[in-house]
Amino acid sequence: MAVLALASTLTFAQEAIFGQRAQGSPHFNDDGTVTLRLKAPEAKKVVIVGDCVENLIAEMKNVDGEWTYTTPVLLPELYNYRFHVDGAEALDPANVERSRDVLTFMNTFIVSKAEGDQGYLYGNHQVPHGDVAQVWYDSPTLGMSRCMTIYTPAGYDKGKKFPVLYLLHGAGGDEDAWVTLGRTCQILDNLIALGKAEPMIVVMPNGNAWDDASPIRSGLAKKVFPPKATFEDSFVDIIKYVESHYKVKKGPRNTAICGLSMGGYHTFKVSNLHPGRFAYIGLFSAAISMDFNTKASVQEQIAADAAASKQVADVFAARPQLYWIAIGKDDFLMPQNVSYRAYLDSRQLPYEYYESEGGHSWRNWRVYLSMFAQRLFRE
Amino acid sequence: MAVLALASTLTFAQEAIFGQRAQGSPHFNDDGTVTLRLKAPEAKKVVIVGDCVENLIAEMKNVDGEWTYTTPVLLPELYNYRFHVDGAEALDPANVERSRDVLTFMNTFIVSKAEGDQGYLYGNHQVPHGDVAQVWYDSPTLGMSRCMTIYTPAGYDKGKKFPVLYLLHGAGGDEDAWVTLGRTCQILDNLIALGKAEPMIVVMPNGNAWDDASPIRSGLAKKVFPPKATFEDSFVDIIKYVESHYKVKKGPRNTAICGLSMGGYHTFKVSNLHPGRFAYIGLFSAAISMDFNTKASVQEQIAADAAASKQVADVFAARPQLYWIAIGKDDFLMPQNVSYRAYLDSRQLPYEYYESEGGHSWRNWRVYLSMFAQRLFRE
Repeated sequence: MAVLALASTLTFAQEAIFGQRAQGSPHFNDDGTVTLRLKAPEAKKVVIVGDCVENLIAEMKNVDGEWTYTTPVLLPELYNYRFHVDGAEALDPANVERSRDVLTFMNTFIVSKAEGDQGYLYGNHQVPHGDVAQVWYDSPTLGMSRCMTIYTPAGYDKGKKFPVLYLLHGAGGDEDAWVTLGRTCQILDNLIALGKAEPMIVVMPNGNAWDDASPIRSGLAKKVFPPKATFEDSFVDIIKYVESHYKVKKGPRNTAICGLSMGGYHTFKVSNLHPGRFAYIGLFSAAISMDFNTKASVQEQIAADAAASKQVADVFAARPQLYWIAIGKDDFLMPQNVSYRAYLDSRQLPYEYYESEGGHSWRNWRVYLSMFAQRLFRE
Repeated sequence: MAVLALASTLTFAQEAIFGQRAQGSPHFNDDGTVTLRLKAPEAKKVVIVGDCVENLIAEMKNVDGEWTYTTPVLLPELYNYRFHVDGAEALDPANVERSRDVLTFMNTFIVSKAEGDQGYLYGNHQVPHGDVAQVWYDSPTLGMSRCMTIYTPAGYDKGKKFPVLYLLHGAGGDEDAWVTLGRTCQILDNLIALGKAEPMIVVMPNGNAWDDASPIRSGLAKKVFPPKATFEDSFVDIIKYVESHYKVKKGPRNTAICGLSMGGYHTFKVSNLHPGRFAYIGLFSAAISMDFNTKASVQEQIAADAAASKQVADVFAARPQLYWIAIGKDDFLMPQNVSYRAYLDSRQLPYEYYESEGGHSWRNWRVYLSMFAQRLFRE
């Protein structure tokens, strides 16, 4: 009896693991489309939303209580979707791949057609893997112990030193965001294995200066208001921990920083506070200014602020290898970025600019990281 | 315009973080009950299931399109629940706390009334935190690179050596299970801070010998069948990695092993293969036998197997400090455990036995870990 019961339990668990996805949802069709399915015989109406859905939203078709939607032909990418059953949010019970963006959960799947395509970079392949750790560091500047996530490349345990990329998340994110939504470990593992990026340590701190605990550990952190200092002022605590606990190649040519949205703001501020410290600086859909009490443009704000102007001048005087500004055509932060570029242009400060399709989205930030990482520590 | 747009975006994100939970779901009432809510004005019927629900399932009440359910008065614990909207599974969009058990997602919340109670042990508090890493190790025995999760206690970076607990998951789980469902980091952080457990390293490998990649990294791993060897045979690779990469106190009095269900089977097999290596051995709801082709009881199976009998005898001849068997009254593996205890009793081999309420559930395994961890390396 016990043996049979166990057998059936194990069989159930194994079936769930091995069986449910292939026959279920998502189903990858030979013609390059993907079919999503949901069993909900009692529902009146099921809607699917997501970036794999034509026009982002569609009604699903009910065939004998199984609701289905088939996407257009999809290019290599990581896609997301979610169902709404009679108005209530529902995830796909047949798809265990889910990711959280602040309070929003979406199912995800990857389309890849060839080694090295964008979808391939996000997948888990038979390549050497880096380790990833959630470590706690002391921040005297903020007066608290804080958590950050650190990726170390395959072969790190052999004793060699590696360059460091500081990779910063946006508003509402945390030290988990770049690893989960951002697919950082996969991107780095795969680019390094393909010979397209240098092995590097990637440091992903929590940019919310008011968090007193790890959102990874607690779901959402408790908050301490007002914070004792800004995140950018506390950045010295992060560098100190990393350089004392990890085998780090030092110096600007071995140190990079980039971030998305609020993390772009942090990148701007931290690099300004430490001119010459980072030879590679990347602003992804950056909120160059976080001052909401002024109607002045970014260009006007910097020009009117002698200290800020000097900082920017000092950053470029140190001749960074790469000052990279990337943003999507439809990003609501485009005007800020246009204004900041006008400021840099007016002073002949050299940067590279990449303008993608799309807006303020993780799809773009994954692509930007894939591009930026390939430039680091080799040019 | 850009500034306003950013402001409203940030405000939205912050509101989502700070506002939605308190006014939303779960709502902790002063009388010790908890109210769960879901907005679904178009739904005909919403059901709630979970271990916080009386009799595990209940219909929710619709008041103006908001469906609500209020639990009985709840004791300190970690609880789970999920909605079914017109027959389709739906999680609580207002509660970001979710955990995965194989393919099943549930919302969770914690009830705690005082420092040190069972719910408190699962929460994130202002205590020193250990770090947690997902590391890849080489397994020559299995012929693959594999991922495991390792907890190091607060203060680990000060250079001292620590004892090691090997903590094994059940069928369908992976190296993520004890950290997420099992709340291992919180339990250890809190027990150590309370002075109730010794600081220790906790090693959580992936017990599925056929996984060729990390489920954490890929959602679900690819599978290699048949595996080249058993997980228990490959355990030497894990010990080798841990003892060469971590600051480990060696010897049986500094080495413990325990596991749940299939992980209890692995604990049984690994400790049998290495008599005297582990002074602390814990079987949680253990599948003592995984042989489904026999009708013989566990007692008969071991008695009929000279090698197994000798291994068990050798384990006890080495006089472990603690051989702990724990299981719930309603666990379907109870007959196996009764039979194994009868075997041990018949040979006067000394063990401790703990019988809890309930069945084959994470609620029990979290409690067993909390109890077992307090016994380690100090008696």
